[in-house]
This record gives sequence, C-alpha cells and structure tokens, in this order.
Amino acid sequence: MSNYTHETVPTQFVEANGIRYAYRRFGKPGTIPLLFLEYFNSNMDGWDPDVTNSLAADHEVILFDNAGVGASGGKTPHTVAEMTKHCVAFCRALGLKQIHVVGFSLGGMIAQQLAIQHPQLVGRLILLGTGPRGGEDMTFTELSAEEQADPVAFLLAGFFSPSEASQAAGREYIKRLESRKNDRDLPVSRDSAVAQLAAIREWGAIPATGRYATLKSITHPTLIVHGNKDIVVTPINAFIMEEHLPKAQLIMYPDSSHGSFYQHRKAFLEQVKIFFSEGDSVEAGQNSIKSSVA
Amino acid sequence: MSNYTHETVPTQFVEANGIRYAYRRFGKPGTIPLLFLEYFNSNMDGWDPDVTNSLAADHEVILFDNAGVGASGGKTPHTVAEMTKHCVAFCRALGLKQIHVVGFSLGGMIAQQLAIQHPQLVGRLILLGTGPRGGEDMTFTELSAEEQADPVAFLLAGFFSPSEASQAAGREYIKRLESRKNDRDLPVSRDSAVAQLAAIREWGAIPATGRYATLKSITHPTLIVHGNKDIVVTPINAFIMEEHLPKAQLIMYPDSSHGSFYQHRKAFLEQVKIFFSEGDSVEAGQNSIKSSVA
Repeated sequence: MSNYTHETVPTQFVEANGIRYAYRRFGKPGTIPLLFLEYFNSNMDGWDPDVTNSLAADHEVILFDNAGVGASGGKTPHTVAEMTKHCVAFCRALGLKQIHVVGFSLGGMIAQQLAIQHPQLVGRLILLGTGPRGGEDMTFTELSAEEQADPVAFLLAGFFSPSEASQAAGREYIKRLESRKNDRDLPVSRDSAVAQLAAIREWGAIPATGRYATLKSITHPTLIVHGNKDIVVTPINAFIMEEHLPKAQLIMYPDSSHGSFYQHRKAFLEQVKIFFSEGDSVEAGQNSIKSSVA
Repeated sequence: MSNYTHETVPTQFVEANGIRYAYRRFGKPGTIPLLFLEYFNSNMDGWDPDVTNSLAADHEVILFDNAGVGASGGKTPHTVAEMTKHCVAFCRALGLKQIHVVGFSLGGMIAQQLAIQHPQLVGRLILLGTGPRGGEDMTFTELSAEEQADPVAFLLAGFFSPSEASQAAGREYIKRLESRKNDRDLPVSRDSAVAQLAAIREWGAIPATGRYATLKSITHPTLIVHGNKDIVVTPINAFIMEEHLPKAQLIMYPDSSHGSFYQHRKAFLEQVKIFFSEGDSVEAGQNSIKSSVA
C-alpha cells in the first residue's frame, strides 16, 4: 500500500449500516492516519496531489467521500452532525482506533463536531478555511448547488485572491488536480450539493445562547490555517477559533483566499511538520489520549 | 566576531549626532543583520538568549538600546516617530545598508514606522506582540513606569498566561535571562520609562481619520507573531495587521500572552526559518529592494 500515490491509489469501498463508503488509502503504514474531509461540493479528486503526496511521506492518508458524495452510496444528510455520524461509522468499519483529521471548510466543521462528540477517536485537528458553529458571516448566501457548472471559474474566484500571483497559483493548482488520470471519482450530484449547502448554513446559524461555548471542549492540539482574504469563510472566524480553542495554533497567509494552504503549500507543509513534531510541549498537561474509539 | 554569543559579546558604542548608542553585535557575518528593537522598559538583557543565539546561527544579530535607554546616551523621546529617527541614525553610524527588523511590542511599533519611512533600509519585519497605530484597546493604562520594581512578577504576569505550563515556561525564560553574567546592560531609568509609556500611548491613540491606512504601504515580507491570550497588546491587533499588511503572515500561539514566542520558541525558531526561506515566492511581484539607506 505504501507505494501508492495520490495518482495511483485505487478507490476502495467499505460498508457500514448498509452504506458503501468510497475511500483511498495510501502513505506511510503504521502511523495514525490523516483523515481528509472535503469542502462543499467536492470529492476525493479535489485535494491537491502535491499536498496529499507530501503528507503521505510521514503519515497514512485517507481520502473519503461522505455519504451520498461522489462514489459513496447513501444520501447526503442536511446537517454537519449527521455527516459526522457517517465519518464515525466509516472509521469503525475500517477498524481505525485513532485518526488525525484534516478538514477543509465543510470538512473542518465535521472535524470540530467529531472532536467534540468523539474526543478519543481524534488525535489532532487541522482546520483549513473553516469556521466555528455560528461564526461570523457564515450564511453562505453566495454559494449555490450550481457552482459545479464552471468549476475552474469557481476555484479561481473562491480559492485564490484577485492578485496576479494568487491567480497564477490557482491555475497551477487546477492543473495539478488533473494529475490523477484513471479511476477518477464520480461528480457530486445536485442533491448532495443541496444537502451540503443546507448543512453548512445550519452550522453557520448563530445560536440564541452559548455562541462559541462548545469550542473550549476541543482540547486536541489543533492547527488552524486560513487566508487573510478568504471570501468564502471570512478570516475573523479563524481568529475566533484561535481565541476559544485551548490548544490551537493559528497560521494566516497573505494575499490568499479559501485555498490559502494550496497557494502557500511549501510553507504549509513545513508548518504541518512542526505542528506534528511539537507533541510533547503542546500536549504537556493534557490527559493522555486513549487509543480506542469512543 | 562570529565566535561571540549572547552571553559573551561585548557591549559596544557608536556615536551619531552627539549621542552614544549602546549595542551588541554577533552571529553569522556577511548576512543582512537582524536589528532587535526592545519592548517597553527593557534593555539588551531582556532578550531570551536561546532565541538570539539560535537566530545568530543564520543571521548577524544586533541588539540595540535606543536613545536614553540602558547604556545608551541621549534622552528617550516621547513618540515612536522620534525613536525611529534614532534607529536610522544608529544604522547609518554603523554603515548598515539593509536590516531585517525584529520588533517586540514597542519595538514592533518602531519597526512599522521604520518600514513606512525608510522602506529601502528594511528587508523584512518580524512583529512580536505588537499592534498597529491606533489599534484596539492600546491605551496601556495598566502599565506604569514602576513595573521595574518587581520585574519577575511583571514578566510572569504579563508575558505568560496563568496556566501551569505557561508559568513554568516563564520561570525558565527568567532563568535564561541571567545566563549573561558579565557586562550587563544598565537599568532603564524612570525618565526613560515615562517617555516610552508616553510614546506607546501616543501610538495607540485612535486617529480621527484613516485608521490603519498606513499599513498598506508596508510592502515588506512580514511575520506577525502573537499570543492568543496577550494581556498587554490584545490579540485582535495582530489580526488587524494581518488583514491590512499586503505581505504578512500571522502566527498565533495557544495559551500564551505577551511572551508567546519565548514560550513556544522551538516552533517560533522553525517558523522564522521558513519565513526567511520562502523569499522567492513571497516576494514575487515585489519591486526589488534596493540595498541603500533611504
């Protein structure tokens, strides 16, 4: 398995509760896997191969389509909480005792929910371009299930800033997305996109009381990464998470939007290494994480 | 010169416009020097030897007492702008064509002013625990010129969070500050502290118009580092600088206050290396920096 790359790893399936989940698993065997949770309206092919392949040198990598997304069976639920249950079912079906979660946008919302509800399943969190429940300006009124009509235009406008340098980085990213030639994932259906949109809007709704109160219970070492010009999830949300999460480090990149960690991926990949290497000091005083599914 | 360390480097003096400035210079010869600008009420002995010695492996390091501070002659001025003029006079007296500036708190304010007024003198900026002109809650009403009466209590309360881990890091930092045994700097006089306090309060005053407008003219690659529980300069100021500076990357550390980069210095030192290594991509599109004093 360790000889596979983003480009060559076959799509596999595992079944739980009658749902057949699609995933791809590669990278360094015997490590705690990084579970990659996707953004709105994307599938396993949406991850930058440079990022997944680089991280696969030190970690096992698992790309995963949630229920109803891409090649996975089942129906996409309308809430982040329900999507989280599918993640847990998927992890149990694979027999995973502990995972680190790399969640991008919608995936970062699921990552937070996972950490809150299944703290022992989660080792560390990497939260990319995401926001807390009930965050600032997370109404997502500008998104629609029709984004996929012109995905290149969507990515260049949403993931990268208008600057020449950022747009150039965007075009390179889009080129890299094509490096996997065979066994591509299935497109996200309109029904799934509609359900995902409902889920992120429900997540973004400001609660009547206790806004941000749940964040303090996420005691996992966390790396928050955001673009300082993110037009999809406004940057103040990363700062709010940094304020409230007990063990989070924030990194914010200049001149970059929702795909900041792709644009600045060289620095990002180095910083992820630092994040995983500083275990002892960051975790000092934390209860040891039990290696069992909660 | 390159065999000196923070502990052994002799204090030197250079004169400009009738003022005798104290400084210490060590580290890797032939590099663009890092000019360290100190926080309120501190002198050259206030820098963490672990940080200066580590940075000295890759850079020349210059510690410097501004006018009227510690062993330097002259009178401490009452504004950041005047302090900046002394920095420039000092650099010219040493014949420095270009410097990177490491500014902590008050030093970070001078660093910004330097970058605005002398853009060609400055290569890169590292802004530690500081805020923009007219930032949020930068009245510094809780500071006084008498802090030095109990410097250990001041540092543990202001530079570190109340957590056990942070306080332990604080005690270690304070121990390290004693590693230089001979040729210690002179204490900061009460008059100098009073003037510095006036300067940071003037800097923090909210202007009637154009708040944050000058930040966009700082086009230097910048690394902003802040603690997410900084009680001296509230963390939102780091976020505001990140929003407005065209080429700044923000790093915010968990469970840490004004001395976040001392508490998390292992990660900090790695991240500084990344910051200096990513020159080409960050500076793409920037006008080349002329190697001459503006």
